[in-house]
Amino acid sequence: MSIDLKEIMENTELFFLKKVKLEGWIRSHRKQKTFGFINFYDGTTLNEIQIVYTDKLVNFTNIQELYVGTAISVEGILVKSEGGSQTFEISAENIVCECESCAEYPIQPKRHTLEFLREVGHLRPRTKLFQAIFRVRSIASYAIHKYFKDKGYVYVHTPIITANDGEGAGETFSVSTINYAQTKPPIDYASDFFGKKTCLAVTGQLEGECYALAYKKIYTFGPTFRAENSNTKTHAAEFWMIEPEIAFCDLKGLMSIEEDFLKHIVKYILVHARPEMEHLNKIAPNLNLLTRLEALVASSAVKITHEEAINLLLKADKKWEILPKHGKDLAREHEKYLTDEYYKAPVFVYNWPKDIKAFYMRMNDDEKTVAGVDLLVPGAGELMGGSQREERIDRLISRMDEMHIPKDDLDWYVDLRRYGGCRHAGFGMGFERLLIYITGVENIRDVIPFPRTPGNCEF
Amino acid sequence: MSIDLKEIMENTELFFLKKVKLEGWIRSHRKQKTFGFINFYDGTTLNEIQIVYTDKLVNFTNIQELYVGTAISVEGILVKSEGGSQTFEISAENIVCECESCAEYPIQPKRHTLEFLREVGHLRPRTKLFQAIFRVRSIASYAIHKYFKDKGYVYVHTPIITANDGEGAGETFSVSTINYAQTKPPIDYASDFFGKKTCLAVTGQLEGECYALAYKKIYTFGPTFRAENSNTKTHAAEFWMIEPEIAFCDLKGLMSIEEDFLKHIVKYILVHARPEMEHLNKIAPNLNLLTRLEALVASSAVKITHEEAINLLLKADKKWEILPKHGKDLAREHEKYLTDEYYKAPVFVYNWPKDIKAFYMRMNDDEKTVAGVDLLVPGAGELMGGSQREERIDRLISRMDEMHIPKDDLDWYVDLRRYGGCRHAGFGMGFERLLIYITGVENIRDVIPFPRTPGNCEF
Repeated sequence: MSIDLKEIMENTELFFLKKVKLEGWIRSHRKQKTFGFINFYDGTTLNEIQIVYTDKLVNFTNIQELYVGTAISVEGILVKSEGGSQTFEISAENIVCECESCAEYPIQPKRHTLEFLREVGHLRPRTKLFQAIFRVRSIASYAIHKYFKDKGYVYVHTPIITANDGEGAGETFSVSTINYAQTKPPIDYASDFFGKKTCLAVTGQLEGECYALAYKKIYTFGPTFRAENSNTKTHAAEFWMIEPEIAFCDLKGLMSIEEDFLKHIVKYILVHARPEMEHLNKIAPNLNLLTRLEALVASSAVKITHEEAINLLLKADKKWEILPKHGKDLAREHEKYLTDEYYKAPVFVYNWPKDIKAFYMRMNDDEKTVAGVDLLVPGAGELMGGSQREERIDRLISRMDEMHIPKDDLDWYVDLRRYGGCRHAGFGMGFERLLIYITGVENIRDVIPFPRTPGNCEF
Repeated sequence: MSIDLKEIMENTELFFLKKVKLEGWIRSHRKQKTFGFINFYDGTTLNEIQIVYTDKLVNFTNIQELYVGTAISVEGILVKSEGGSQTFEISAENIVCECESCAEYPIQPKRHTLEFLREVGHLRPRTKLFQAIFRVRSIASYAIHKYFKDKGYVYVHTPIITANDGEGAGETFSVSTINYAQTKPPIDYASDFFGKKTCLAVTGQLEGECYALAYKKIYTFGPTFRAENSNTKTHAAEFWMIEPEIAFCDLKGLMSIEEDFLKHIVKYILVHARPEMEHLNKIAPNLNLLTRLEALVASSAVKITHEEAINLLLKADKKWEILPKHGKDLAREHEKYLTDEYYKAPVFVYNWPKDIKAFYMRMNDDEKTVAGVDLLVPGAGELMGGSQREERIDRLISRMDEMHIPKDDLDWYVDLRRYGGCRHAGFGMGFERLLIYITGVENIRDVIPFPRTPGNCEF
């Protein structure tokens, strides 16, 4: 059995001068007449190790022919390195090629554009950049599960296929087993798999609320879908969301939870994905990634109402492309001004105009605003959106009527106010939005293993 | 701020004779003339605590009217209990009803049928049975993430929407944004959202293989979909799967990993979901749930080939409904005989006839069997299915041809054998199948928060 390179790198004293067996791939290969150097990685760590081999090995000629990207098995002794920047290397006693056929590798060890790498999405996780990004994704997932587990939250798998479109907003993908190629309109959905029209969920919040009223604290973490035909850097048709929901929690309590959650996750990643974060920091020095994230952990979030935010923006000595306006949403430039220029800190904007927010947000006493909150972070804008939910059944129903939300499909949701209802609140965070913020990667297509965007469903 | 009941139950010494504030729900309510007992839970633990109140409270009359299921906030002193089986109780100083409207609760504190509870799927997680089941689901999820994280696996989110149907088997749900109500056949999929025909993934394995050849060890854990029109106790249209994939691993290595993984998860649950498991054990005594799971942890799995299994079944002194036959699949009664009667242990059946297994399984030297393996466990049958994957490009292509797998859609999959290929193996485990095994619950509809089955897409 081979050993993980990570094990060796973390225990060099233990393995020093010992014989080890490694299995992995060739990152690069330098050949001399009587010896050679293989830069070797196995994917268990971002680190590589140098394998030194000489013509004393019986298959020396074959080894010299090995392409970049080839899978190999190596036996050798862990020794101190004499040259280069590395401290340790493997003095090879045996190198075996693990590939039956070894074609010339399409990704040579040089800089490639992200666009090109997306086209070889099945191979790009082997590059150092994507090794870093997708290990951060994995570690961030774990950090999220660990955070909620430590705080006593129950993890709930809310449904993906649904008959209601959740927020009553956004376009959905329909899900069906009807053979449309042989079916003329009108379509009889009674004959469809579920006996009705179904689509992919845009949120798990409403179902999450059912479970919050059973377990007090729950969270979801699963894929959600938007059939929005927008080809931007931050939109994907399929992405993962985290949606915690907490009973007996109001808007103020929710903001504390959001802030604590975000700082914990960022802190965890700064510690547990250190080599990856340092690599990402190094390759995009102008982002000051580590400095920015460390500042976030040390920061105290500001809390202002939407009205205060607009007043502040109107007073600012700025030329706006979109003029700030009471009752309207914030534009990206407004968010940026608040977090990056004015406060230089994360900013909670709460008490939003009711007309631009979802039906389930709790009406404030002013009857004009709802208890919704967006968390804006420096360098990335909106990261989380949440609200205290309307727990008063009459208010909820009249909002549903006003906003033309079909009540028949959501009688169970209204029931939550009828039976054992209580004040409760929750937020949603797009996982990829967090990853873009943490890794400094610009395009959502580069933080999703196999991204789905308009016209693109490869692999 | 209120405190979780779990905190109090785990630190009774700390809170003894202290004033505490709790928020949660009424499980049951016994009223006397001058006092009353509320059996209170808050969902953070399976435990309940008794709240004792007397007519010294100013709102005594209102409290006496509180329905089962009502949300309340309670302040009181943690004291030793004088009567009943409980050790501690809360002597109430203040009880506030948190519901604005409190309708009579549809789930009274008595035994209900599982069928009835499915109809109130939004409320059933509040019952003690489902509190146990869905907390086990949450803890099992965490155990799985923790196991793989501790072993250095990278968690990969494989796509849900896909243009290939993975195993070339099973019926899929189509995903589309075409307005079929206004579109006559023929359908032009070039105008669909992704510019082609897409469906919901039945597996993440093939994409998982891409990442195993980058990170050595990866796993997926996400929803998968089957549009199978079968109304059985063990089939759902939407379920969660765990699919680990390991580079430089052969069939023997895979079996070790499967066994180690399963025992770790079961052990974790027996420790960390102890109250829930004891409750489930108590309500279905004939299952001997705890004994069965403890036996599994202590067991050593048997490894036999499919051929050996058939020979053994043919020799058995049994009247089979379906006669065991070489080259054919095992029936449920065959599996049961192997695990429950003959070996009384988990059984790996490996080297399956090639004709009844998927195209990607590695051909054995006999050219008749493939390096596939099913893990059967006592009391539950097949729990995991895995294989060493065909890493030899010529073999893979000829199997794809033989089995009419469209190669154009899977050129990237074939590429994995072209570039940096190596022996690798993986398995899949249906998460709900594990939960059925662990909780002793019979019907898959009762281990999924909001199950999707033919004709059923409620909530």
